This record gives sequence, structure tokens and C-alpha cells, in this order.
Amino acid sequence: MSDEEISNELTEIGEIIIQKVRENEVPSVQIPSRTTSNIVYDENLECYVLGGKRTERSAGNIRHVKRLAQMLKVASFCKNELMGTERHVTKRELYYISESWGDKLKFKTQDRSDDLVEDIEAMIGKPREDLKINPKAKGSIYGDMTLKFKNPKGETMAVNCLDSADGQSIGPRTCEADIIECNADKVLAIETDGMYNRLMEENAHEKFNAILVNLGGQATRATRRIIKRINEIKDIPTYIFTDSDPWGLHIAMVIIAGSAKSAHINERLATPDAQWLGVTASDIADYKLRSDELREVDLKRVDELKNDPRYTKNDRLVQELEKWEELGRKSEQQALMRYGFEYVVDEYLPAKLKELGAPGF
Amino acid sequence: MSDEEISNELTEIGEIIIQKVRENEVPSVQIPSRTTSNIVYDENLECYVLGGKRTERSAGNIRHVKRLAQMLKVASFCKNELMGTERHVTKRELYYISESWGDKLKFKTQDRSDDLVEDIEAMIGKPREDLKINPKAKGSIYGDMTLKFKNPKGETMAVNCLDSADGQSIGPRTCEADIIECNADKVLAIETDGMYNRLMEENAHEKFNAILVNLGGQATRATRRIIKRINEIKDIPTYIFTDSDPWGLHIAMVIIAGSAKSAHINERLATPDAQWLGVTASDIADYKLRSDELREVDLKRVDELKNDPRYTKNDRLVQELEKWEELGRKSEQQALMRYGFEYVVDEYLPAKLKELGAPGF
Repeated sequence: MSDEEISNELTEIGEIIIQKVRENEVPSVQIPSRTTSNIVYDENLECYVLGGKRTERSAGNIRHVKRLAQMLKVASFCKNELMGTERHVTKRELYYISESWGDKLKFKTQDRSDDLVEDIEAMIGKPREDLKINPKAKGSIYGDMTLKFKNPKGETMAVNCLDSADGQSIGPRTCEADIIECNADKVLAIETDGMYNRLMEENAHEKFNAILVNLGGQATRATRRIIKRINEIKDIPTYIFTDSDPWGLHIAMVIIAGSAKSAHINERLATPDAQWLGVTASDIADYKLRSDELREVDLKRVDELKNDPRYTKNDRLVQELEKWEELGRKSEQQALMRYGFEYVVDEYLPAKLKELGAPGF
Repeated sequence: MSDEEISNELTEIGEIIIQKVRENEVPSVQIPSRTTSNIVYDENLECYVLGGKRTERSAGNIRHVKRLAQMLKVASFCKNELMGTERHVTKRELYYISESWGDKLKFKTQDRSDDLVEDIEAMIGKPREDLKINPKAKGSIYGDMTLKFKNPKGETMAVNCLDSADGQSIGPRTCEADIIECNADKVLAIETDGMYNRLMEENAHEKFNAILVNLGGQATRATRRIIKRINEIKDIPTYIFTDSDPWGLHIAMVIIAGSAKSAHINERLATPDAQWLGVTASDIADYKLRSDELREVDLKRVDELKNDPRYTKNDRLVQELEKWEELGRKSEQQALMRYGFEYVVDEYLPAKLKELGAPGF
């Protein structure tokens, strides 16, 4: 989305109000409801989305007046202070910026400003990254891909992600950069920092012709965003390599199908054709991996996932969830190290990529 | 430290054993004790170090035999598999690698292998980074500094940290890279990701002639290591910019004086002439920052720090600890945003850098 298009979307919110005033109506806006009862699983999109329920925020309701004014102020701030600039703010910064809007408009607590940002996301159907309200940076990216972006001085730069000692840090400019060249034919997203470094050092990016993404645990929105953008723009598949436990699998699922919390924007964040590569529950037995007993909290999580619509239709994932229950064990991606440094790139990953029909295998 | 020097240090551990065998003595090694009673505050070095107490690990004691053998195996692994290569392992990987050493030598739990790594660090007086056992990567770095390192293919590369959209990710190669050029005259280390991005976007690296380091909260060893190396090699000062609370101040202190846990290696990790820039307790009042009440746990922390030898000799820090108690309030670096985007670089930081006698101010 260009800044100009977003500006127009934001202007439209104001236009609705002006129109109502002109027509002698009470100014109000309709906002898609983000309550649990309006979050539904979309079988076609394979992710949670919002249903049709809307709530009205009206100047005719004394309890709505402040929120309505704050919404217009936030929209106007994004339009006038961020669009067309190289600036980004965090949700926390936005909260503090509101201090300067006077006692009537400033936010009492950050959860109120956060909530308003989600309202605007839902209204315009665009993630807040498009509004230049950027998510927390975490993770890094390495591989033969050239990103074009503007540096803080406004100069256009192009940087190849191989020109880096440990990968490029994923922040607001990386997420939204133009991908002007990508010589890889797949993305390999990795749960742990340690395994990401192992794959770099074993030259996996070259051997597998892959872009390596270090998730650093649960992927932030910034990381999910760059994964989705590479997938969409370059039309190459994504494989997610995690620990062998329900938490690792769910790290993959949030990349694939989004979260319930981001139902209003999942279509723009989720990568439905990304695939979980492993370490699967079956791998624990097949590869004789050192494993630990599943704790009660892990088993409870397995049970929750078995009843989650994101899983129920996927036979392979349901089988793996049951396999964990059967084994009562979990394992970590580093457990593959028992076979030496090269095993993960010479044996394990090629077998898995072949199984999933990855390009070049 | 070159790989060859470290190899020699590791070989010496084995030589001690061989020597004892040749002399018909029971093989044993002396290890600096890392128990609390042997951790002392060194007034000259201004950090915690180990005292003179040593423990013996002897083949004559049946309870020591396995640990002694494991120590020799770990030392030999580092020497033969890591030195002279471009490979690094994490502590977790080392634990899993031990699986392949057979039932007699493999570690039962990771805390046992972690503990052994610290024993070796203490014995040779070098951080495990020198053994290529790398710490968790976190944080990123941005500014006019050129790093020379070997990429995974063993090719020597030079990368300027400005050639990046959001900064270079700090991992094992960044930490240990040769700093072949540095045009900045100071390092500015920043607690939060959001403020790091703010400073980048406001061009602070250029305005202040600074290298910006994103700590992402408590600094990992990798981040402390690169900060110390820039300080030592380039002889430029370091300023640490945190939230205004005892936790933020202590983030700075761990960079300055190390932690008790790393007493055996603080001399190699701490940057004693680094300075805490703020946000200070006094700043909350002076800059009229939005603040929150200090919770009981915060006040308890203030009290602990007031009795910590790393603080007691520093009048400025003691005064700030007392100021928090007096105000009963804490604040965040983002609270400066109430004065607009530019305030932090146009007003706040210049005032602070001048106060601390920073170069160029």
C-alpha cells in the first residue's frame, strides 16, 4: 500500500463524519466488532476473520464522544505526521505522543490507544504497518535477496541480505522494503537463534537455495509480515522449522493462519501456504532424538490444539498432535546435533523438504 | 584472542593431567571456585571478580572422575572441532552434541554442561566466546563502522553497519569481527527497540557521530561483548540510554560492571568507563515526564541496589536511587515523545551528553 492510498483511506473516515454533519445527522462511524463472538474461522481463507457484526461509535452517545474524537485525532496524526515521511512510531510512542494533544484527547492508559489502533486497522482493512505504526522488531534474515528502502536521510539504498555477518535485523524498513531481487526459491523460517546460526554456518542458504529467517521464538508481526511479503511478491514457498512440541507447532500455525487476536487483519498477515517442516512428533521416534517428558501444561496445549479449527481439518497435524500424546515426549531442534554438525543440512532437512515437495528436491 | 592461543590454553589443561600421570601422581586440576563466598567486589576493577579460592577435581575421588573426564572431552571438542574453523556452537548445542560421546561421557542435563563451560572459562580466564561457544543473539547495531569477518563460505567480507535497513543483527560473527574502520566518536546503547528506531529515523547516529546499539532490554553477553570491543579497540566512550526505573539503571550497570554470575569473566565483558545517560530519576521531574507509581517490587529493587557495591561508591547513582524513592515514580524513555519527534535528539540527548562531557559537546 502506498502512503497516498492509506492517506485516502484515513481521509474517508473524516469524510463520513463531515457528510453526516452536512446532512444534519448525528456524526458516527461503524466499526467491525472485534469481540470474541464476532471472530469466526473462515474455511476458505483458512484463518480467523471477523464476522459481519459492527458497533457504532456515535457523537450522540456521551460515552462515545471522547473515543470518537480520539479516533479522528489518531487518524489525522497518521495522515499528517507519518504518511509521506520516513517516520514510524511504535504503539507505545503513540500513547506518549497523545500527551501533547491536551487533557481532553490524551489517552489514560496504553491499552486504550492500542485498542483504537486496532479499530482503525479493522475499519480500513489494512494492518497498522501500513499506517507506519510499527511492531516490535525481533529476528533477522539472511540469504540472497536484495532489499530496496530509504535510509533515515531519505536516500534510496539497496542491500543484499548476504552482506551481513549475522543477518539483517528485521525492523520497520526491512518489513516494508521493495524486494528487488531474490535468487532463492524458498524461505526457511527457524524457531531458535541457535539453529539459525547452525544453518548459516553449514551454508544451508546456498545448499537449499533458501532465505533463512530467524524467528527468535514466537514470530513478531514484523517477521510474519516479511515472510508473507516474500511469499506473495516472489511466489516462493515457506517452510517452518521448530522444536518438537505443541508450542513449536503453534509458532508455525500463527505464521500459516494468523492468531484470533489479529482476526481483523489476518488476511494481510497470514501465509496460508506456508508449511510446518518439523521437528515433528514422529521425528522423535524416527530420528531417536533425546527427548523430555511432556509436562501437564504441554499436554493441555496439545488438547487445545486438537480442538482448534486451524488444526482439525489438517490430518497430518492432527496425527502429529496424537503422536505427542502417544509418546508423552517432546524434543528440540538442537537434538539433531547428536549426529554431528552436518547432519541437519546433509540428511534431516533434505529428507523433510523432499517429503513436502519443496522446489529442487 | 586468536584460535591458536586458545588452542594452547586448552592443550595446557590436558598437559597438567599428562604431567601428573608421568610423575606417578593422581591426575587432578585446580579450578577457581565460583561459589558465592568466592565472589568479591574489586574496588580497582570496579566489578565483581573471583577471589583466590580453588577447588580440586581429582581422579582420586570417585565422585570427580566423570566430571574430570567430561571437562577434558569438552576442552578437546573445542580445540579439535571449533578452533581454526568458522563454526560456533551454543551451550544448548554442546549439550546435545555430548549425546554422541557415549553413555559414560554424555551430560545428563544441560545445567551440567553449562557449568562445565563456566569451569573452563574460569580456568583459562577467557570468555566462552573465545572458545566459539556463542551466547544468544539479540539486539542490533547501526552506524558508520566497518566490520571485517569471514562469511559461512570462509570468504573475508567487509560490511559497513550503515548498509542496512534496520541495523545489523548482533550474532557470533558481529561480536568478534575486526573493526577495521569506525568514524563515530561514541557509542549510544539504547534499552528499547522503539527508541532505537526513533534515533535512527531522527538521524541521531549522524548528528551525534555515534554508533547506535539496540539492547532490546537486558543486554545479552553478545551485545556486552561488542560494546566492550568497540570501547577497547577504538577507545571511544559509551553512553547507555534506558527507561527511568531501577531495572533500566541496572541494565546499564551490567554493561558497566558485569554481573555477579559472570564474576569469573567480568574483566573481559565489562566496560567500566561506560556511563548511564538516563532517563534519570531527576529527569522525571525536570522534564515533566508522564510517570507511573513505583510498585513494591520496584522499591525493593531500589533498596537492593542501594546496598550493592557497584552503586555505593557512585554518589550520582546513589542520589538517583534516592530520588526514585522520594518521587515514588518511574518513567519510560518514550515519555519524551510528548514533546514531539525531534525533542529527544534536538534537546534531551544533547543536554545529557554535554553533562557527561561527551566528545563534540
